[in-house]
Amino acid sequence: MVSFFFYPKTIAVIGATNNPKKFGNAVTVNLLNNKNLKSQVFLVSHKGQEIGGLRTYKSILEIQSEIDIAIILVPAKVIDDVIDQCLKKKVKGIIIITAGFGEIDEEGKKKEQEIALKSDNTGIRIIGPNCVGLQNLDIGLNASFIQTAPIGNISMISQSGSFGCASFYAMEREYIGCSKFANIGNSIDVSFNEILEYFKTDQNTRIISIYMETIESGKEFVKILKEIIRIKPIVVLKGGRTNYGMKAASSHTGSIATNYKMFKTSLKQTGVVLCENVNDFITALKTFSYLPIPEGERIGVLTNSGGSSVLFSDKAEGFNLSMAEFSDEFKAKISPYLIPLVKLVNPLDMIGGANESTYYNITKIMLEEPTIDIVVACVVIPPFLKMKSDEHYRGIIRAWNDTGRKKPLIPLLMFSEDFIILREHSKREKSTIFFTPHDAAYAIRILIERMKLLKKLERL
Amino acid sequence: MVSFFFYPKTIAVIGATNNPKKFGNAVTVNLLNNKNLKSQVFLVSHKGQEIGGLRTYKSILEIQSEIDIAIILVPAKVIDDVIDQCLKKKVKGIIIITAGFGEIDEEGKKKEQEIALKSDNTGIRIIGPNCVGLQNLDIGLNASFIQTAPIGNISMISQSGSFGCASFYAMEREYIGCSKFANIGNSIDVSFNEILEYFKTDQNTRIISIYMETIESGKEFVKILKEIIRIKPIVVLKGGRTNYGMKAASSHTGSIATNYKMFKTSLKQTGVVLCENVNDFITALKTFSYLPIPEGERIGVLTNSGGSSVLFSDKAEGFNLSMAEFSDEFKAKISPYLIPLVKLVNPLDMIGGANESTYYNITKIMLEEPTIDIVVACVVIPPFLKMKSDEHYRGIIRAWNDTGRKKPLIPLLMFSEDFIILREHSKREKSTIFFTPHDAAYAIRILIERMKLLKKLERL
Repeated sequence: MVSFFFYPKTIAVIGATNNPKKFGNAVTVNLLNNKNLKSQVFLVSHKGQEIGGLRTYKSILEIQSEIDIAIILVPAKVIDDVIDQCLKKKVKGIIIITAGFGEIDEEGKKKEQEIALKSDNTGIRIIGPNCVGLQNLDIGLNASFIQTAPIGNISMISQSGSFGCASFYAMEREYIGCSKFANIGNSIDVSFNEILEYFKTDQNTRIISIYMETIESGKEFVKILKEIIRIKPIVVLKGGRTNYGMKAASSHTGSIATNYKMFKTSLKQTGVVLCENVNDFITALKTFSYLPIPEGERIGVLTNSGGSSVLFSDKAEGFNLSMAEFSDEFKAKISPYLIPLVKLVNPLDMIGGANESTYYNITKIMLEEPTIDIVVACVVIPPFLKMKSDEHYRGIIRAWNDTGRKKPLIPLLMFSEDFIILREHSKREKSTIFFTPHDAAYAIRILIERMKLLKKLERL
Repeated sequence: MVSFFFYPKTIAVIGATNNPKKFGNAVTVNLLNNKNLKSQVFLVSHKGQEIGGLRTYKSILEIQSEIDIAIILVPAKVIDDVIDQCLKKKVKGIIIITAGFGEIDEEGKKKEQEIALKSDNTGIRIIGPNCVGLQNLDIGLNASFIQTAPIGNISMISQSGSFGCASFYAMEREYIGCSKFANIGNSIDVSFNEILEYFKTDQNTRIISIYMETIESGKEFVKILKEIIRIKPIVVLKGGRTNYGMKAASSHTGSIATNYKMFKTSLKQTGVVLCENVNDFITALKTFSYLPIPEGERIGVLTNSGGSSVLFSDKAEGFNLSMAEFSDEFKAKISPYLIPLVKLVNPLDMIGGANESTYYNITKIMLEEPTIDIVVACVVIPPFLKMKSDEHYRGIIRAWNDTGRKKPLIPLLMFSEDFIILREHSKREKSTIFFTPHDAAYAIRILIERMKLLKKLERL
């Protein structure tokens, strides 16, 4: 079990420093600055100076308390002594952030084997080397040198630290976040699969996201994915899908990237969402973070912009989605709220004058309609008739709230990323927004796939 | 010639009103609020009240001056008299914004024919009905009811008014903008092709962008595109590419959307950029707005993030791009600026510590290198080592400036949309940023296509 790495009572940072130009400082600051963190932090520095008002120890052996995890940041060439001291101290786990091992050359690989061998008989577990570290947002733990992730229900394992870092920027934008994060580098001991096993059982992890370039134990990996997928959605992005990509990945991690065709074939049977680009990766994460799984596939579309619903319809067909047919009964229900110019067809183009209450009423009737399973509310924010830029969205979300958020509601507000007031409302309401027809249709596709998978598993 | 519509000396708004809940008010305000507009604006309102401090006329016939364009916003049922008065007044052109004609039913179509017939012998040209109007940003003219577009060198014709409106939001975000904009609705007289003919010769139009759902004179359209493409890039997005999309488009415009397969085949020979989604549409516009055409196809990549360059490499191969091979000479030039851990291969992973000056030096050497035609500078903004969030980008752009911006320089800053300081620098420097590997690779693909087309045309 590797769970103790995420819940340490005591942490030692070996290679702590006051120098803001060093990674040892970044980790120290990340640990000390989080007021929610209850774990006790000890700093080890050969200089012996005070850091952030805390005394430092010259060696981990000087610390009286037991240490759960030791985070090592000293240069590769002096790492041997430090590891020996950690083993002697009987820490539970070591995170080696230091780079310059197997990813560089054969000598580095040999060095890694030596370290692994040393710890093997002790029961002491090692994460790394050449990693950014890990985070547990639930307890305010940032044991890495990158920024603290926004908090949420996604747990992420990434084979690129900087991809994790960039994803946090994207999550921040989308008001989604992490429960746990791990980048385990060259993984000489604790493996990718072990981290996934832990995420499987972790209560706060509702969604699992994976960025990977290479895989060691493919069969075991697929087996774990199959187990997890029954209880949580998994979103995967693979770097090194092409020859160019594999070449770049190999020079980056030092290991050979996995052939994508084979990878894709084995992953398809598991039911994970395998994304082809970073945009879909983030869209998938926000979809599962905010939207319920539908009961069926029939989509109802309302809009104030013909162009926008035409473009959505194109993407809907591209993703093999199904548009609902409006029944006469349904038409009778909506018509009192619409002007005579409006044709009662799906997509329902309510024309530019449609306002908050039009959106509220029509969205609500669609959400209550038994022949519609998914509602797409398109808006191009009208710059005329003194309409407020967030009023349509307000109407949509009000209808969603009033119907108990039972059906997936996809607000498609094309190119409205810069309407601050809109995004603030989205944050406050814990609801999401899609900004392109592609993203909206993609979200529906993966929700339907998840529905089908769960239904299939129920039947088994 | 339809150019006078874009350069009117005198404009009459028929259906002007003080009521902010009416489109007649939106057009009036858009015309009066732009201080740069030199054209004289006359307001016609049957109520005869003052609007925005301007007197109003009960009829266009009361106005003494000659009128270049009359913009009609009165309801469809009272439009006949108003048009008769415009014809009598011998205006040069009429823009009928009023909706409720051919897009609604057969009766509406008949009505349109009557109007067209009336004006036919007079030489008076008509735009519309059922349109949002047009804009000429070069003279501060917004003769439409949507927001004034940001100013720039793109001229756009859109068969959806709201798509124009949404595009302006996107352009604003990307610091690109319009020279001219037109949405001509049911086009009973002035045609899509005529507007394109005008954009062809217009000096301020450097890039042409088209959103279309249907096409009347396909052969002529293709002929015009072939003429334009020799001098300006054209970016096209077609709504109604699928059955669902065509159905939606037909209910929206009242005309049958064009079959996409045939459309695609004929457009491919012309050399236009035909986009499959709105994201690529905007990416293409920003690419042509900011980047020069390359001399060759060989790409050099530098990065501080392995993951980011792996993902770019995947997209590069997906778009059939070519990575440069680094020569020994080139390696000797760059190595003094890099730490020993850095492997001298393409993509060049300079690792997380690379800062402004590393980016400046390496980008500059790549831009000066004769065996590299296009430079991609990947950055994941590092949240550590006290680096400034825009420093890498500053280094990149400084190198681009110092080498005269001769080669395309693609800054790929994954998921950095919310770094305000970065975007401000981009605006100030008149340079662009790409936020996903897909967008960066797509930009290069279309630049290379344009290069090939121009080379082919030269040879002919």
